[in-house]
Amino acid sequence: MKYLQTVGLVSICLLLALGRSASAASSADILGQSPDSHWRTVDPQHTYVMQLTDKRMVLIELAPAFAPRHAAQIAALVKSGWYDGLAIVRVNDNYVTQWGDAEGTKPLPDGLSRTLPAEFELPRVPADLPFNAVPGRDAYAPEAGFAQGWPVGRQSARGPAWLAHCYGMVGAGRDSAPDSGGAGELYAVIGHSPRHLDRNITVVGRVLLGMEYLAALPRGDDAMGFYATPAQRVPILSARLLSQLPDAGRPVVQVLRTDSSSYARWLEARRNRTDSWFVRPAGAIDLCNAMPPVRLR
Amino acid sequence: MKYLQTVGLVSICLLLALGRSASAASSADILGQSPDSHWRTVDPQHTYVMQLTDKRMVLIELAPAFAPRHAAQIAALVKSGWYDGLAIVRVNDNYVTQWGDAEGTKPLPDGLSRTLPAEFELPRVPADLPFNAVPGRDAYAPEAGFAQGWPVGRQSARGPAWLAHCYGMVGAGRDSAPDSGGAGELYAVIGHSPRHLDRNITVVGRVLLGMEYLAALPRGDDAMGFYATPAQRVPILSARLLSQLPDAGRPVVQVLRTDSSSYARWLEARRNRTDSWFVRPAGAIDLCNAMPPVRLR
Repeated sequence: MKYLQTVGLVSICLLLALGRSASAASSADILGQSPDSHWRTVDPQHTYVMQLTDKRMVLIELAPAFAPRHAAQIAALVKSGWYDGLAIVRVNDNYVTQWGDAEGTKPLPDGLSRTLPAEFELPRVPADLPFNAVPGRDAYAPEAGFAQGWPVGRQSARGPAWLAHCYGMVGAGRDSAPDSGGAGELYAVIGHSPRHLDRNITVVGRVLLGMEYLAALPRGDDAMGFYATPAQRVPILSARLLSQLPDAGRPVVQVLRTDSSSYARWLEARRNRTDSWFVRPAGAIDLCNAMPPVRLR
Repeated sequence: MKYLQTVGLVSICLLLALGRSASAASSADILGQSPDSHWRTVDPQHTYVMQLTDKRMVLIELAPAFAPRHAAQIAALVKSGWYDGLAIVRVNDNYVTQWGDAEGTKPLPDGLSRTLPAEFELPRVPADLPFNAVPGRDAYAPEAGFAQGWPVGRQSARGPAWLAHCYGMVGAGRDSAPDSGGAGELYAVIGHSPRHLDRNITVVGRVLLGMEYLAALPRGDDAMGFYATPAQRVPILSARLLSQLPDAGRPVVQVLRTDSSSYARWLEARRNRTDSWFVRPAGAIDLCNAMPPVRLR
């Protein structure tokens, strides 16, 4: 079989990794050698599992550092079981898969509002938020890099800073008014990263596991990829925070710390592939090809 | 329903396009106003239809200007019916869908070789090959733009120049040796564009229609997304050049000319979205978000 080297959320290269030089470690080697302290365990209060079927689990981490009100709203909705029985309503090829309360009529738990103020960007970057730049040119932002594992564009070190629409990132749909979103409908990016959406809509998190289920759904035939009939929709059996799951059934999910030396080495190995298959390592990488690896403990 | 503005191969924006100013045309307006002379009809000798089912048609245009030997080989294989009965053997999430003769054992028509010399790039750019730059920064190439509708990275105006691995682009799988590919196995990009593959493998064309069928297939469970068993493979019923189809059943497929003023206006409207939904037009676009629109006449 002819092959291409693989990439993916939890990609482990199974090819014989013949280095270009004896000292060049592959990205798989680097992950294998990384100490546990270089991995961040996700917060069970801000990470949830959405079950599409018994076997199809989508795991989403929220980003309270960037969208605190939306993250709190989604966590509260998940906790109350509000997403249970809703559905995926839209799959637009090379763009997004979208789910939630398409009609906007499902009653909300007490104390929650249907809309929230926009959280498109952080006007100022908190001093304690690390930023690890991805070296090279970014087409959309003056500076691009990672903060606590999140892909970020920013104007300068002072801000503004915003989450980037990379493959697998999750946002909150809105109508025309900036403050019209409220986490009743969410979407995940399933194609080439639509970075023109950055700063135009609230990005709330990332799909850490299960993107293959959101991305492989039949595309919708209606305008903008909406399913033409309710019968085509894909039901959401349930959504639960990790903190709601019994200890025995709770996955321990980790993301490589983007401020660790392992990530820096991994990034460099991705910029310049050491596998012998590559005849011309790119010497470059873009933000959305540098998303930190995820693992299940 | 909350929505996101759509993008896609043949995207026609169905939203009410309220301009930011009376003079700002949306990208949909620009396509609607474009004269026929701004569209290029694909060459029926270098474009083929791959049927997955009676209703699932994937239309692929080959790029002889960049990969002449591979394009000729694929056209000859298609013409002889060689791909009929082969299958999609690999679907790797956020990477590629791959099809062909996975075992490398199917006899070839007389006169064809199983492998071809690598066509990773054009060392020199022909003087008659137009190049329309995408303004802004490209993460991977010193210069990025379009030549006859193809996404291209290049070192300088003299070359080298190469086809870029954008969503929907098609390449020829190879083993470790650069000259080990031969069009027996092909792949299409189904995720965030893996531009690090540029100049490392021969890119042969683009899926103009039917990406939604290649991208929505179940991901393979085996290493690198290969299907674990032959039963999971997705059969290719047939592949035929447009020139082999009867006139009555032959689709007329057109790509917006990237050296036309309509494309230049469309690109500018994509860089700075005029729809009222956008609160902050990006003022930027990357190569793979600027793929020229396709239409069926």
